[in-house]
Amino acid sequence: MAKPLKSILKKNLSFKVNGSLWLECGGKKYFGPGPMELLERIDAAGSINKAAKEMGMSYKKAWEIINRLNANATKPLIETHIGGEQGGGSVISPEAKQLITYHNSLRKKFIAFLEKQTSMLA
Amino acid sequence: MAKPLKSILKKNLSFKVNGSLWLECGGKKYFGPGPMELLERIDAAGSINKAAKEMGMSYKKAWEIINRLNANATKPLIETHIGGEQGGGSVISPEAKQLITYHNSLRKKFIAFLEKQTSMLA
Repeated sequence: MAKPLKSILKKNLSFKVNGSLWLECGGKKYFGPGPMELLERIDAAGSINKAAKEMGMSYKKAWEIINRLNANATKPLIETHIGGEQGGGSVISPEAKQLITYHNSLRKKFIAFLEKQTSMLA
Repeated sequence: MAKPLKSILKKNLSFKVNGSLWLECGGKKYFGPGPMELLERIDAAGSINKAAKEMGMSYKKAWEIINRLNANATKPLIETHIGGEQGGGSVISPEAKQLITYHNSLRKKFIAFLEKQTSMLA
């Protein structure tokens, strides 16, 4: 059991355990906060172009992310409709929604872990 | 409860939950894998210069890291002796050793968390 850090860290400063989390595939980052935000914004905006702009990302870059996600998924995560009365648009698939739900659930557990570790600093 | 991901991720690929962890002070990264490696290498080499070289880091950069660590610590983390029969050198303080012990213990808990989440992907 490690001793608490309070004896070596200055008492008037706010210390916190923080981190980041992602899903890897074949040793490479596959799904983390960036792709998560992109899918959520496509879902809200109904458009890859709008979602990319909101994130200050090029349309090309957004498609690179989507193609990378699709490459490891059993079904496409984005469904794009060209033209039509609404002028086309993109929606996220049920599989993308499942990935978002999973990531949110994982994120919650991670935040609980970080908060527990932070509380143990005191 | 989120559904398992196995239905939407390709079965022949190896998925894994991974992440990184650090200690923050005042909203900024304070102690993570980089400073940890630097302290451990100074401890092993008895020299800041040697440790920095091993990490492909300048002596100046190593001191920037050490000064940043010291700024939030109650006692200096590195004790430097100039000259003398051994030609001087640097050793890490008991406080630095305590920080390493803490980080190792935190890291172990984090790895256990990641492994548990990875096992739940299947």
